Amino acid sequence: MNRKVVIIGMGFGGIRAARTLVANDLDLLLVDRNNYHLFQPLLYQVATAALEQESIAHSIRAMVRHWPGTRFQLSEVTGIDLDRRLVLTERGEVSYDYLVLGAGSVTNFFGMESVERYAFDLKQLSDGEALRNQILLSFEEAVAEQDPQRRRALMTFVIVGGGPTGVEFAGALIELVNFVLAKDYPEMSLKDARVVLVEAADKILGAMPEQLSRYALEKLRDMSVEVRLDSRVVRAEPERVFLADGTVIPSHTLVWSAGVKAAPLACALEGVPRSGGRIAVMPELTIPGHPEVYVVGDMAFLEQDGAPLPMVAPVAMQMGSYAGRSILAREKALEIPPFRYRDKGSMATIGRSAAVATAFGQNFKGYLAWLVWLLLHLYYLIGFRNRIVVTLNWAWYYWFHERQVRLITKVKAPH
Amino acid sequence: MNRKVVIIGMGFGGIRAARTLVANDLDLLLVDRNNYHLFQPLLYQVATAALEQESIAHSIRAMVRHWPGTRFQLSEVTGIDLDRRLVLTERGEVSYDYLVLGAGSVTNFFGMESVERYAFDLKQLSDGEALRNQILLSFEEAVAEQDPQRRRALMTFVIVGGGPTGVEFAGALIELVNFVLAKDYPEMSLKDARVVLVEAADKILGAMPEQLSRYALEKLRDMSVEVRLDSRVVRAEPERVFLADGTVIPSHTLVWSAGVKAAPLACALEGVPRSGGRIAVMPELTIPGHPEVYVVGDMAFLEQDGAPLPMVAPVAMQMGSYAGRSILAREKALEIPPFRYRDKGSMATIGRSAAVATAFGQNFKGYLAWLVWLLLHLYYLIGFRNRIVVTLNWAWYYWFHERQVRLITKVKAPH
Repeated sequence: MNRKVVIIGMGFGGIRAARTLVANDLDLLLVDRNNYHLFQPLLYQVATAALEQESIAHSIRAMVRHWPGTRFQLSEVTGIDLDRRLVLTERGEVSYDYLVLGAGSVTNFFGMESVERYAFDLKQLSDGEALRNQILLSFEEAVAEQDPQRRRALMTFVIVGGGPTGVEFAGALIELVNFVLAKDYPEMSLKDARVVLVEAADKILGAMPEQLSRYALEKLRDMSVEVRLDSRVVRAEPERVFLADGTVIPSHTLVWSAGVKAAPLACALEGVPRSGGRIAVMPELTIPGHPEVYVVGDMAFLEQDGAPLPMVAPVAMQMGSYAGRSILAREKALEIPPFRYRDKGSMATIGRSAAVATAFGQNFKGYLAWLVWLLLHLYYLIGFRNRIVVTLNWAWYYWFHERQVRLITKVKAPH
Repeated sequence: MNRKVVIIGMGFGGIRAARTLVANDLDLLLVDRNNYHLFQPLLYQVATAALEQESIAHSIRAMVRHWPGTRFQLSEVTGIDLDRRLVLTERGEVSYDYLVLGAGSVTNFFGMESVERYAFDLKQLSDGEALRNQILLSFEEAVAEQDPQRRRALMTFVIVGGGPTGVEFAGALIELVNFVLAKDYPEMSLKDARVVLVEAADKILGAMPEQLSRYALEKLRDMSVEVRLDSRVVRAEPERVFLADGTVIPSHTLVWSAGVKAAPLACALEGVPRSGGRIAVMPELTIPGHPEVYVVGDMAFLEQDGAPLPMVAPVAMQMGSYAGRSILAREKALEIPPFRYRDKGSMATIGRSAAVATAFGQNFKGYLAWLVWLLLHLYYLIGFRNRIVVTLNWAWYYWFHERQVRLITKVKAPH
């Protein structure tokens, strides 16, 4: 009988592990609480009416269909019994010979309850549509609002966190306002609209070289995003946001992209060493004392060259592939060297024809970086049809300055 | 100062009225509670994972942008003061010189509370996604279900109403099951899956010629849809459906497409003659005593050649255009003859390469009818980008038997 590998989480890590393991005489069971793989790096484009949510998600069963010996189970994992080698799900227990844990991360509000309550975030697929609805509805309310102060507050969007997500979202939002919505609302001046980016450090894109970080800052300011450095949000109300220095920003929309933490499942494991909520793994990505359990992606804590690996997609992908290769090697009684992350660079797009990127030890900015950003995102997006639809949307936007998905959709609760 | 026309409802009727009226020195105000025009005839394809919801909706502001003298207001209309010529909305009062009322229809459950509570319907954009989630989730639950009876009930879908919507949905659903989901669930036999179409009359597509109605019935039965003629649903529970003859069908999904009634706004008008809830209009489509108020589409009741005009899109479109032309004529002190509906035919698609259609006094069925159905729907769909995305999805399905949008999306309530 084939040995059984269970992979929890079909994010960037889980998918890579699965791809590495298929067709190797193993029984694979993939478990996720969604029936799709989400391409999260483009979620902010759903929120800014540039893409439909369907084009950044891909059915897991559509992939599994082509993978021999692989099954998928839609369910929430409630715990893991490491000693009995069982995954506990809402649909019952599942046994394993090897386990790959890649349940990812959730938004970290750092215990600020009012922020958690009123802020939007961009982690799950539904977050994109919810934020898009909020943005578009705010403009519809603004156009009908008589009180100029309230109108301005409706058109003020506060984004917290100057990392890639915050920067990309801020740029996409100000472009939505200036290029698209300005034409949609001829009866109202959109000069009143504000996009405020709040960053706690003294620069944005802190992980990038100084030169690129500065370029991104200037570019955003050119586009009239108000960037507030050395600044922190401490509290929120439905119609205003409070900063640490006492500033109050009247705003109906707060977007939080200032941090993530490991998924709650990481804390549900007993007797496992943790660091900052993440599972501290061995250099082979396994849990100490449980060489059959791999942890990949945002859930895993591992230091390399004295610094913890960042919670980003490339790390998760490389970890997923490694876990897969390691299992295959062990099945053949071979050994492979410990995991080592190879930083191939990072990138962020700021606006149309403007991005920053590092790769091959070089810095790129402007049009070229933007083109590379675009092609790489299309490359990593899963599903051929998705790539076509995304390309189509981008071409439309590039040529016509038009974003077609500006619908305010009603949500309908399940029966 | 220009005279002011208010159009309520941006469905097929309202859109045509607006298009006819623009650029004629009139002030146009369009009012809708959604910010998009919905192409409702393809909503069943959203429910069966063939199309993303964004591709059958088009931003109203994207259209209005190109229409001089036209504004849009997103709001719910709460009433109309015919004497003072005021539209009452949740955002205040709006005055008019001419009013075009085209608020459409809502699902008619004929007072059956249990059915209204548990059935899905296909009227609004969110209905499509809600039903898609229900269908896909039912299969995910079925594959994990141990009890064979319950598994079968999860895979049983009861559709009420053998009109075009019910027939098209039944055909699209059985194809989703047989062509797509059968490959997604190799671990489970989908022979147990049932699509039951319940029709009260002794034939389906009752408005079609006998020959086409019979073809559609045979075709659906060939595709293994269980068609129950002379049959009525009288009650529903979450896990079963009760028919008038005492039959109980174990089923977790009931879809209601057996009738519509005029939108509640029709009943909110005082002192207006009504017939079956619809507003009985003059031959000029105006309300008796109020020649400045036109009613178009599903809200309007008008007999022609002894029979009431049906509540379908072509009637709404022709009424909308007529209302526009009539207003323009009166502004020039001209008169045009009363409204007359020209029946250009009707059509319904049953499955891949199979449809029925009447046009030019001829009956068409099979591949040719299907091709015409396809081209006409693309033609009437608003938005060039939407047409491309829909064509792409259809081509994909046609060649690869693949429907890509099979995502179970979580709904997220607004803050």
